Amino acid sequence: MATTAASVAEICAAAKRASQPLATVGSEIKDAALEAVAQAIEELVPEILDANAQDLEDARAGDYNSAFLEKLRLDEARIAAMADGVRTIAALPDPAGEVIDGFRLPNGLDVRKVRVPLGVVAVVYEARPNVTIDAAALCLKAGNAIVLRGSSAASRSNAILAGLAASAVAGVGLPEDALGLVSGSGREEIAELATQTGLVDLIVPRGGEGLKESLKAVATVPVLYAASGNCHVYIDRWSDQDAAEAIVLNAKLQRPGVCNAIETLLVHADVPTPFLRRALTALHDAGVTLHGDERARAAVPELPIDVASEADWDTEYLALELAVRVVDSVEEAIAHINAHGSGHSEAIVTRDTAAARAFQIGVDAACVYVNASTRFTDGGEFGMGAEIGNSTQKLHARGPIGIRELCTFKYLVEGDGHVRP
Amino acid sequence: MATTAASVAEICAAAKRASQPLATVGSEIKDAALEAVAQAIEELVPEILDANAQDLEDARAGDYNSAFLEKLRLDEARIAAMADGVRTIAALPDPAGEVIDGFRLPNGLDVRKVRVPLGVVAVVYEARPNVTIDAAALCLKAGNAIVLRGSSAASRSNAILAGLAASAVAGVGLPEDALGLVSGSGREEIAELATQTGLVDLIVPRGGEGLKESLKAVATVPVLYAASGNCHVYIDRWSDQDAAEAIVLNAKLQRPGVCNAIETLLVHADVPTPFLRRALTALHDAGVTLHGDERARAAVPELPIDVASEADWDTEYLALELAVRVVDSVEEAIAHINAHGSGHSEAIVTRDTAAARAFQIGVDAACVYVNASTRFTDGGEFGMGAEIGNSTQKLHARGPIGIRELCTFKYLVEGDGHVRP
Repeated sequence: MATTAASVAEICAAAKRASQPLATVGSEIKDAALEAVAQAIEELVPEILDANAQDLEDARAGDYNSAFLEKLRLDEARIAAMADGVRTIAALPDPAGEVIDGFRLPNGLDVRKVRVPLGVVAVVYEARPNVTIDAAALCLKAGNAIVLRGSSAASRSNAILAGLAASAVAGVGLPEDALGLVSGSGREEIAELATQTGLVDLIVPRGGEGLKESLKAVATVPVLYAASGNCHVYIDRWSDQDAAEAIVLNAKLQRPGVCNAIETLLVHADVPTPFLRRALTALHDAGVTLHGDERARAAVPELPIDVASEADWDTEYLALELAVRVVDSVEEAIAHINAHGSGHSEAIVTRDTAAARAFQIGVDAACVYVNASTRFTDGGEFGMGAEIGNSTQKLHARGPIGIRELCTFKYLVEGDGHVRP
Repeated sequence: MATTAASVAEICAAAKRASQPLATVGSEIKDAALEAVAQAIEELVPEILDANAQDLEDARAGDYNSAFLEKLRLDEARIAAMADGVRTIAALPDPAGEVIDGFRLPNGLDVRKVRVPLGVVAVVYEARPNVTIDAAALCLKAGNAIVLRGSSAASRSNAILAGLAASAVAGVGLPEDALGLVSGSGREEIAELATQTGLVDLIVPRGGEGLKESLKAVATVPVLYAASGNCHVYIDRWSDQDAAEAIVLNAKLQRPGVCNAIETLLVHADVPTPFLRRALTALHDAGVTLHGDERARAAVPELPIDVASEADWDTEYLALELAVRVVDSVEEAIAHINAHGSGHSEAIVTRDTAAARAFQIGVDAACVYVNASTRFTDGGEFGMGAEIGNSTQKLHARGPIGIRELCTFKYLVEGDGHVRP
């Protein structure tokens, strides 16, 4: 493993060299490396906990809040979950070498479009040590070398985790430099990492908007932004009320702080008031602050519903807070979502096939649900094993970023002396 | 059609509004619009020639060379080819709505990954009026609205072509603003176009390196760069000599100025000298200036072969010029290509299955050929109907950029009240 004893450019160059054998090796060897990572995690639990305890001690002395410390903290269960996660990824089909498309041209040339690794993937993340292992395992499974840049607050935790992963890679005969770790306390290393054109093939930030904006400003290598999500559930006129209530509550409450939780509820004007009362009361009783338009507030006057401003339609609360708007048609719901949504996950609850189809075709988002919660947008839920984030961009990867999305492809063309006339 | 009577932002906003009905319309309507474009081109030949003659007259008075004037010039054959090209694109299968993947999750949710248009595609190009029609037809077929920014030297030609295309779109009931034309003589419009985040989903430059660099410096919307190509043919030890000669001559001579023509010939040291003499003599006789390493020059001392410098391995001549290097193994050929190539199109000529496989797996390029000329890297040749360029980047599109590459996808998920546990 190359670390910041070397420069960022040297770490990236070492990873690039290591990426070539890694890209062409069989699944057995990559999976053996991943199993070795899982075993090393299990064998080094005391050492990992000790390193993490030191990180936590320093962090407690620093200016960090309890949410930060909770993310940074490892325990035996979290460490066991890391090892399980690696084995789940190892068990996935190898994305490298998959034939995506194939055809014979009229002139007899045989063309195969084959999935291949990207090369070197850099992952920049905040003080969650488990991301060190998650990201490394996903990249290795896809056949990519990886350069990790974690938070300095997690430096000891990251060092032991990245170190054991690099040793496991070396243990199966692959270059140890396939896994590099950049540390440092400033943003200079991020800027340096994001400008290694020709060495780094993709950089994935996993963190807040500040991290993304600072990358956007400097990056010359391609960036895949894990997304924020301003998501909606729309309850159509003709819909199952129990399903609607369950979906709304699940999408808002099951984990309010994540990108696929909803921020606005849209309700057709013909949805009966008793149902709207029931659903909004349940949300209120669960501690949700409500912001409503005039009709929503008028429908349930006994609840304390703030007047929603235009800004509410554009806000990702990531908290127990929800905007509510009454619309007159599925078309109005679609227009609202396309105007205010972030293109992440959008749901309609309906029994009307025409409304379901209009919504699926008309809504411009990564994942469009009919009669299901937006909370399913997740690499694990989608059977991708794990994800490195969710993309709301339209190029390359949209939705969960799993091992296939960490690949590119190439065309392999075979002839017998073909020349172009 | 919105034109620069309006601002660039207004044109893009109009295109964004128009993109929604366009994205959801059936193939029949898009194909009818394309047929109407082809017919309008055929009906307006005199008017198109007249507009082009005026552009040419101004250009002749300006400081332009003959190659520039030749690109700008339209004639009846070129206009007929434009109409034919539109009909070829119309006849392709509709990429929008194609199901790329689909599966049922363990919880019963049904997931389809469906190809959908990107939204608004901007194309920035130089003084080739035919690109106006090519780009518009590809984007419309994919269901995208398009904003064109051509060269001011072709302003009259572009205006009539874009105008007839917009009228054809309006004629089938789609919004005329689905096709916008930005003109102007400076780079300010390009910079403005490249920063319309939220309105423009993709910008594709078709032009020289200067255009690409100026875009790279300012673009905040995603850019798909049509590629330059430093391509190679490697002649392996055990190879068919007639096929090898034919492929080398075709790859260098058939059209030397394009990105998939070769710039370096690699030859295994065991390839017999008489063959190397024959191939290099044929190239020399065809007017090719040769730059060779020591062994290549020693093998054919009677030919005037310059001493190749390190710079030659990295040069895209785009002309009757070729570097020649002798290597000792397929591995050395692969290493040379990965070090110096641009990841475009690479070919091996061999009868050795092991060498062919090593080359296909080891070479990191968009298209890797066995026993065929690199000149086949082309959307038309690959059965994509046409292309807007070739990509050497690894994200989203690699190789020919056709109508599928002008699309994104979304996940459509259907349940019956599913909530996440």
